[in-house]
Amino acid sequence: MIQLSDVGLIGLGVMGANLALNLESKGWRVSVWNRTAPGVGKSSVQRFMDAHAEGRRLAGFSGLSAFVASLSRPRVVIVMVPAGAAVDEVVGNLLPLLSPGDVLVDGGNSHYADTERRVQLLRMRGVHFVGAGVSGGAEGARYGASIMPGGADEARPVVMPLLESIAARAADGTPCCSWIGPGGAGHFVKMVHNGIEYADMQLIAETYALLGALGRLDNESRAGLFEQWNGGRLRSYLMEITAAILRRREPGGGYLLDRILDVAGQKGTGRWTVTAALDLGVPQDAVASAVFQRALSAHKEQRAMVSSFLGTRPVAVVPVAELSAELEQALYAARLVAYAQGFELIEAASRSFDWAVDAASVARLWRGGCIIRSAFLDDIAGAFEAGEAGQGLLLSSRFLAPLCEALPHWRRVVSRSVTDGVAVPVFSALLNYLHALSTERLPAHLIQAQRDYFGAHTFERVDDLRGHFHHEDWTAPPMPGPSANS
Amino acid sequence: MIQLSDVGLIGLGVMGANLALNLESKGWRVSVWNRTAPGVGKSSVQRFMDAHAEGRRLAGFSGLSAFVASLSRPRVVIVMVPAGAAVDEVVGNLLPLLSPGDVLVDGGNSHYADTERRVQLLRMRGVHFVGAGVSGGAEGARYGASIMPGGADEARPVVMPLLESIAARAADGTPCCSWIGPGGAGHFVKMVHNGIEYADMQLIAETYALLGALGRLDNESRAGLFEQWNGGRLRSYLMEITAAILRRREPGGGYLLDRILDVAGQKGTGRWTVTAALDLGVPQDAVASAVFQRALSAHKEQRAMVSSFLGTRPVAVVPVAELSAELEQALYAARLVAYAQGFELIEAASRSFDWAVDAASVARLWRGGCIIRSAFLDDIAGAFEAGEAGQGLLLSSRFLAPLCEALPHWRRVVSRSVTDGVAVPVFSALLNYLHALSTERLPAHLIQAQRDYFGAHTFERVDDLRGHFHHEDWTAPPMPGPSANS
Repeated sequence: MIQLSDVGLIGLGVMGANLALNLESKGWRVSVWNRTAPGVGKSSVQRFMDAHAEGRRLAGFSGLSAFVASLSRPRVVIVMVPAGAAVDEVVGNLLPLLSPGDVLVDGGNSHYADTERRVQLLRMRGVHFVGAGVSGGAEGARYGASIMPGGADEARPVVMPLLESIAARAADGTPCCSWIGPGGAGHFVKMVHNGIEYADMQLIAETYALLGALGRLDNESRAGLFEQWNGGRLRSYLMEITAAILRRREPGGGYLLDRILDVAGQKGTGRWTVTAALDLGVPQDAVASAVFQRALSAHKEQRAMVSSFLGTRPVAVVPVAELSAELEQALYAARLVAYAQGFELIEAASRSFDWAVDAASVARLWRGGCIIRSAFLDDIAGAFEAGEAGQGLLLSSRFLAPLCEALPHWRRVVSRSVTDGVAVPVFSALLNYLHALSTERLPAHLIQAQRDYFGAHTFERVDDLRGHFHHEDWTAPPMPGPSANS
Repeated sequence: MIQLSDVGLIGLGVMGANLALNLESKGWRVSVWNRTAPGVGKSSVQRFMDAHAEGRRLAGFSGLSAFVASLSRPRVVIVMVPAGAAVDEVVGNLLPLLSPGDVLVDGGNSHYADTERRVQLLRMRGVHFVGAGVSGGAEGARYGASIMPGGADEARPVVMPLLESIAARAADGTPCCSWIGPGGAGHFVKMVHNGIEYADMQLIAETYALLGALGRLDNESRAGLFEQWNGGRLRSYLMEITAAILRRREPGGGYLLDRILDVAGQKGTGRWTVTAALDLGVPQDAVASAVFQRALSAHKEQRAMVSSFLGTRPVAVVPVAELSAELEQALYAARLVAYAQGFELIEAASRSFDWAVDAASVARLWRGGCIIRSAFLDDIAGAFEAGEAGQGLLLSSRFLAPLCEALPHWRRVVSRSVTDGVAVPVFSALLNYLHALSTERLPAHLIQAQRDYFGAHTFERVDDLRGHFHHEDWTAPPMPGPSANS
């Protein structure tokens, strides 16, 4: 009799194929199936099996029923197909073949609201649905990713051993995988991870641009600085690959980076983060700006036209030592605020949807495997674990002093850039957010007065209880008051 | 026999009631109906009729069928109920009573996608649906609003005489109402109007804050400056009411503004603008920041806490003459860029949905009646009409020179504010947008290289055709090229 598999994997794209190999390498017996229609040459299952099956506990299937029948119970099926209609299609085809108690894991980049819906829907059939965000790209999928599962709680004991086994390990050896919470919690946290990634990448790009524009540094010198910073508190995957990218030469001479067109693409999770932030009322100006910068990068002809009229060359030349010291401080502080904003969004969603997400576990599981992994997340996890972040990450004892130290440098970086016409939208957005957050009385009362003036939207008063709303008839003569009577 | 009415109006809230009175005052016979259940004291129809019917051509109805039967054909019904489910409910109740050729006008703040859907849906029944954005608040509804109708083209000859009659008049006498385009075009343009309004109000609020923080000016002096500016190129409704708000005293002494809580509300059109911009790939950082500032204003306790650790008092005192001259320039230029962004969004939607919106008519109809009405829109309309804005509003001959003149002042305002810790999120966002737009080569190539490094997302090359995508195996040793062979 054929031995049953421990887990099934659907979708043999790069991520799916690598996850299957990763699972197998950790001792699990894996069945694979792919939804592409057979008949056109070799199927992708066939190709995957030809390339990888020898000596491995892998079983490939062309039929979905046979694939499902090959799994031991409760069955666990991991689905790695594009977000959206493809997931619904696979779920629809699988559902009649599954039994109550089986578990379906969506490891793609689904929107958290879709995951929420699918968890509810499958619950009615007794099937436990899990939305697991997976970060780390193809490498991570194969050798250790950062994994953010959430959904039907019944699935937790079944999937955690599988997912923990294929997760990356942080420096202290703990797997970069924790159960996030019910419903769409896992995919929400993955979405915010990507939002932070947008801001972080844009901050690095602005730093790169400033080193050129104000410091007149070439690629090698800039690579040297990124490497130097990567040896300190800015240590992170994105800093590391930035240095490598800056040094990359073309076979025919010159730097590859200089030949790459300045048009950056995006796949939607940044937009989703901004939309979720708008809905939840949590500022994410930095992610919004980073997303809009990518959009603007695509308007290449328009930029060329406008720059021919309005483009300016920076006049200031800042000595390298000074510029690099300022930028290291600015980058550290801006990054801190960007991460703090990300955690605020997660906490707001957790309160709003009653997910009870543990911020410390999120910070811990981002320490390895994922794109935003960094030394810094060790500190953030530490702050959450030690309960120092009760008033927000920025006021935790381990961040407040460095933030205060960095602030004047950060201000100088933005002030210099603005004066010299170098675009620093995300450095600016985060700094202005920090300034607004540190302002006890914002000019929002003027806005509310305007709203009451033209739309009778009412206002609260500083000398009355919250929730008591007043309206002024702004164009009427003021009522005579006590002073007029006295 | 009873005379039939020219138009029916459903929804007797402030806006609806005022529109009915406005229509009647222009010579139309108006039937009114309200969906609130009768029975609890006087119905709102009764109350409206009691208050207003005497000597006016108004007819009130408690039954929907009688209301519909009172209208001459083709029937025109204007619906003024809250956006969302209420509109669908009214449409659902009305539809069985209408005949092919009748016209339904939604004058509320509906989302353009809902309007698009309703136009399609009612077309199947031969009923012509129109989504008309109406700006101007209660005053505008009563005495002349800015009206943006769009939808089923068959409705155009029927509704335009009605809507034009109740629209505000620009200084040159033309009605502030133009047919915007098919589908959801009218409501889209109204949404962008509101987005611009968010940015404009926040810019004024930042200016007010800066006059206090860096100029140490009191309310009266600030009111004086806003009045002075309102006499020049910044002339606008929002400047005018800002001065009036600043001067408003309490009956018991002191300024009302100083007693208003710094928490600003919002109703959703700003969020919609940002979401539409994200979908269409058109930067709207300023609207996003303005929306997020309102969200942040609500986090009052958090701000108080953070400010006790990180709050700073500005040290610089800028002489009033210098500060006010700088701010006038900055406000002019920032506003120009905000409006230009708004028009970019409208034009992108128009291209994307094939609406053929005429930007000049939009600018013209915003010149009167609406919240963002301003002298400035006369110039913008002029630029579009004269065909000067083919390369965007900013490069039109009438704006380029003042923009170039204002730019150094604007930069100084932002640089000062940033240095002194005064939050200027929208001044900054717009300036950084302008700087990025004027940058021929953005650092987006570094972002795209990172995306290719960790996700194999490919890149285009400056030395190859657009649409040719390359991928680099970044961790492999570089291929030997010609130079290595020579």
